[in-house]
Amino acid sequence: MRVVIALGGNALLQRGQELSFENQSANIAKAAIAIVQVIQAGHDVIITHGNGPQVGLLALQGAAYMAVTPYPLDILDAQSMGMIGYMLEQEIDNLLPKGKRTATLLTRVEVALDDPAFTHPTKPIGPVYEEAEAKQIAAAKGWLVGPDGSHFRRLVPSPAPTQILQIEVIQLLVDNNITVICAGGGGIPVIKMEDRSHAGVEAVIDKDRTSALLGNQINADALLLLTDTDGVYKDWGTPAQKLIRRLKNSNFAAGQFPAGSMGPKVEAATAFMHQGGKLAVIGQLKDALAMLEGEAGTQVLCG
Amino acid sequence: MRVVIALGGNALLQRGQELSFENQSANIAKAAIAIVQVIQAGHDVIITHGNGPQVGLLALQGAAYMAVTPYPLDILDAQSMGMIGYMLEQEIDNLLPKGKRTATLLTRVEVALDDPAFTHPTKPIGPVYEEAEAKQIAAAKGWLVGPDGSHFRRLVPSPAPTQILQIEVIQLLVDNNITVICAGGGGIPVIKMEDRSHAGVEAVIDKDRTSALLGNQINADALLLLTDTDGVYKDWGTPAQKLIRRLKNSNFAAGQFPAGSMGPKVEAATAFMHQGGKLAVIGQLKDALAMLEGEAGTQVLCG
Repeated sequence: MRVVIALGGNALLQRGQELSFENQSANIAKAAIAIVQVIQAGHDVIITHGNGPQVGLLALQGAAYMAVTPYPLDILDAQSMGMIGYMLEQEIDNLLPKGKRTATLLTRVEVALDDPAFTHPTKPIGPVYEEAEAKQIAAAKGWLVGPDGSHFRRLVPSPAPTQILQIEVIQLLVDNNITVICAGGGGIPVIKMEDRSHAGVEAVIDKDRTSALLGNQINADALLLLTDTDGVYKDWGTPAQKLIRRLKNSNFAAGQFPAGSMGPKVEAATAFMHQGGKLAVIGQLKDALAMLEGEAGTQVLCG
Repeated sequence: MRVVIALGGNALLQRGQELSFENQSANIAKAAIAIVQVIQAGHDVIITHGNGPQVGLLALQGAAYMAVTPYPLDILDAQSMGMIGYMLEQEIDNLLPKGKRTATLLTRVEVALDDPAFTHPTKPIGPVYEEAEAKQIAAAKGWLVGPDGSHFRRLVPSPAPTQILQIEVIQLLVDNNITVICAGGGGIPVIKMEDRSHAGVEAVIDKDRTSALLGNQINADALLLLTDTDGVYKDWGTPAQKLIRRLKNSNFAAGQFPAGSMGPKVEAATAFMHQGGKLAVIGQLKDALAMLEGEAGTQVLCG
């Protein structure tokens, strides 16, 4: 099968963990093991990844060095793509048999300038803060902050991906049996100008939405959305919580799967299935191969 | 012709210029015009670029944010590759006719752990300082600093590239008529461990050396090394200075072309010619096409 594997920020960095090089390396090494199990089972794999914690760290580092004005968020997206892509590629490549090749491709993704996300930022990036500290930082740096679970984080716009500019190159690489790492951080967000040229915009695209679009455009059979929980739960956080093994989004009330949690994953998986995907599963990193084989995670069905 | 174009750090950022996003954008826009002239003339182009100022800035930003331990230099190399690759790709892509595709590929490059560069760092990165300030920063951060022209800069190891790990993927992209941006910052330096796996090392590879190796490995006809002067001069900095139009390195005394200036470019160009290259030219960014047509720059000959 041709499989798109989307690594959540929470699969690369556990909630609350410091974003040190060591923590990130250790998590990426674990991710590589799970991904290589899928490749070794004979599947063609395309890997995407989130960048919320990393792009937030880069923004804080940029703001801390006063001698140079901080760079815009699309530039930091590109930086985070280089960093995470390198770490993933190296760990995966180290586990693959000799002769099997990997490639990490910088990926720009078109979004619409009139996307409502630009006036309603919802994507949390960077470290978590207590409310008071978050509000202090927001005031000092001109950032927006808002709740993310029990803490506060910086919020940035997360517009919908409309076109993956490197899609033909990704297709070429996949057709040549190369394991591709692409659309890091959901892709670098760009808008199309009147003269048809592209310009970067300050945002972070949801990598699950980009992964669903990517999967459909390269005719992937399966989409695996990997996070730090073993699937989608009914009544999450209550004594009655129960893992859903097969999920039809239309069977659930709006808001059952929160926006900051499983909501975007369920929507992305549903979109992938509607556009011709054969299998979409949400689950935890270490179960990747079992998810593909129907033995773990939450399968999202059409409808 | 198949042409490798290496963009010097000084072609992307003028000496002494602040490394702001605006300055970098303006310089990259100019570089894109010169590169697209070569593509429009019918040549296949592979672009590499330096990262000295940029990786130095990322290190300073990382050091300024005290909450997280700074990341190692190979990670910053990867970040700078994402940033510069994105900016270059977007500007070039905006100038190309519709249907002509570009791809920016993360590139790891093998170096030897026993390379003498690791005990004798020579590569200047980041901003320039006065001597006293440089020594203060060096003491505070545990960095090595040394003279670069009339100022001081941080110095890091610059080992020789021995193998470009992504070479087959680059070849595939070039064979498919795609304009490739790769080996940014000379490539991310990695060493091969006893078990044949790769691990990153803290260094910045000279992008001219990597570009020569790349050119030979993909059978490029020409190598253009672009900087901020119009060629190599005899007796540079003296009243008798004279542009050399055709240069045989063996005709000149050792040290005629200084290590921090034209020396590495002359050596890289000579190596490219020795390994089968047809044309190697050193010159300024805006002359790229004229250099290829023999009308500008310094042609470096075998021997």
